[in-house]
Amino acid sequence: MSNCVGEPVSNVVNINTDIRKSSSAFETLRSLVSEDMTRVNQTIIDRMDSPVALIPQLAGHLVASGGKRLRPMLTLASAKLCGSQTSRQVMLATCVEFIHTATLLHDDVVDESDLRRGQASANAVWGNKPSVLVGDFLFSRAFELMVEDGSIRVLGILSHASSVIAQGEVLQLTTANDMETDESAYLEVIESKTAQLFAAACQIGAVVAERPANEEKALEQFGMNLGIAFQLIDDALDYSAKQEQLGKTIGDDFAEGKVTLPVILAYRRGDDTERQFWHRTMEDLDQAEDNSDLEQAKLLLEKHAAIEDTIQRARHYGDRARDALAIFPESETKTAMLDIVDFCIERAY
Amino acid sequence: MSNCVGEPVSNVVNINTDIRKSSSAFETLRSLVSEDMTRVNQTIIDRMDSPVALIPQLAGHLVASGGKRLRPMLTLASAKLCGSQTSRQVMLATCVEFIHTATLLHDDVVDESDLRRGQASANAVWGNKPSVLVGDFLFSRAFELMVEDGSIRVLGILSHASSVIAQGEVLQLTTANDMETDESAYLEVIESKTAQLFAAACQIGAVVAERPANEEKALEQFGMNLGIAFQLIDDALDYSAKQEQLGKTIGDDFAEGKVTLPVILAYRRGDDTERQFWHRTMEDLDQAEDNSDLEQAKLLLEKHAAIEDTIQRARHYGDRARDALAIFPESETKTAMLDIVDFCIERAY
Repeated sequence: MSNCVGEPVSNVVNINTDIRKSSSAFETLRSLVSEDMTRVNQTIIDRMDSPVALIPQLAGHLVASGGKRLRPMLTLASAKLCGSQTSRQVMLATCVEFIHTATLLHDDVVDESDLRRGQASANAVWGNKPSVLVGDFLFSRAFELMVEDGSIRVLGILSHASSVIAQGEVLQLTTANDMETDESAYLEVIESKTAQLFAAACQIGAVVAERPANEEKALEQFGMNLGIAFQLIDDALDYSAKQEQLGKTIGDDFAEGKVTLPVILAYRRGDDTERQFWHRTMEDLDQAEDNSDLEQAKLLLEKHAAIEDTIQRARHYGDRARDALAIFPESETKTAMLDIVDFCIERAY
Repeated sequence: MSNCVGEPVSNVVNINTDIRKSSSAFETLRSLVSEDMTRVNQTIIDRMDSPVALIPQLAGHLVASGGKRLRPMLTLASAKLCGSQTSRQVMLATCVEFIHTATLLHDDVVDESDLRRGQASANAVWGNKPSVLVGDFLFSRAFELMVEDGSIRVLGILSHASSVIAQGEVLQLTTANDMETDESAYLEVIESKTAQLFAAACQIGAVVAERPANEEKALEQFGMNLGIAFQLIDDALDYSAKQEQLGKTIGDDFAEGKVTLPVILAYRRGDDTERQFWHRTMEDLDQAEDNSDLEQAKLLLEKHAAIEDTIQRARHYGDRARDALAIFPESETKTAMLDIVDFCIERAY
């Protein structure tokens, strides 16, 4: 899977192969857990219901918006890999998705300062307050479901994950608009805000299958490294033509002054003039209305191979994720989980 | 405790006696649980800590702002009433306070629509986003502490309470600015958003003392009715001279168009012109800048004895709260808990 930098011809060939391979990897994993996944989808709908009509309306909007449900799928796949003999993973995968959805809702809350800059709004349909409260509901409901499942272990894993996620999100706020943020501070943020839930989602699979500690740990590490790789690619995509081709907006992180790895690399590799550019645009949020600053940012990222190297970093964590699964015997599920790592990384092309 | 309407002279005498009696009731309860309460205060400080500095800063701001800590005190008092032989109530009272603080933080989130009306902001110091995320942290941390305590029963009680609270808050949003909201819809909101946590706080006291179901139920009912009375008084105070004397702003509910019982009563008892006034101010939020509409609202509330009758309703729930404790033998703690009901109601004078 290592497409070496500087081999353009073979790269092109590899990439095409990879895209086919990785798309089918996702479908393969989905079909391996399809029976459980159908039940998860139904449980999501059943359990997000409330007599307060706005709750299923708002939550349903998010649910219908068609995320891949990668996190609950990882719980199901991990349980299958571990030979789970129960169906507990269905309810717990639902909990994982509820927690994820709650964090999405809260992540989209528009800050007052954002509004003053006139950059509202991801939650334009309902406003801040319902998003916060429905997020709280989904979060509480996740814990109600865990209580129904009855495992203090699982409650411990997911309550800890939730508290780490919240801390990571706050840490991200404090590193935003600060060009002194370095790679390790950035890694701490994405480990907390993203990778921790991937790790918990996978670990739970081993817990319900009542597997020994080393297998729990292996799945936790698989999820953690996969989550880091996933977020690195997300952050690369925010500046990438590929994302534009998919009809998604780019430059959101830039507009908010969110200091992600591509920018960290370009800033540190840049000269004084370039650094002044980053200070002005990311710290002072003094950005041209006509997108020319975003274009300049993209040029600087290209000049310093910052996107390429961010993807390279993601490959490193992808390799670690794959190696974490080494202790498991070969199986169809294991192969699908190994391939899902490529799927997460090859999104970048 | 029934100060009958229409007996002004004896009322004045009673009220003065009541104020002294009820203030000292709070002090009496506090001193009865003071040892545990000191440990709760310390646990709050210890457990809201995080390597992410903004978290203890923001949480500490709220903690230092000096709420009465009535809810955790109720957990401690209930445990004492039940003769708890453990110290588990300390950690669980902390959980109750964390959940309460989280809901306060989320309640203060400013909606986009509010901002458009230029009515920001309760969380002016840090903005929306940190408030939401620190709330999430406290909420997750509460569940981490419950996991440490290890009781699935308690986790069930507090996860259910949290989900009911969130549903109540959403319900409140959907009844705001709607003059068709009636007393029963209003009661459903305050039972959910306020009384449920009072009920859970008290019930937990019986759980840690391992008391039979009827005592758990009695304490839950005590808390539920006390919570309803508490919120009714809060909603009366929002229009009351008493609150103004205490240096607190009044009219917040009016400004937001929050349809509380005083307004419901005045609206239903009013004539067409008055109803038009309420439609304009509460539904259309078309309110004079110079406070004259708030003054007019207060006149209408007075005309229809709406504040008086709201307090009378609170007395009813206060009576039910007191009767719920009837199954417990007499004790210093029981007397203090009975008196705390008066304390919550007499705040109105």
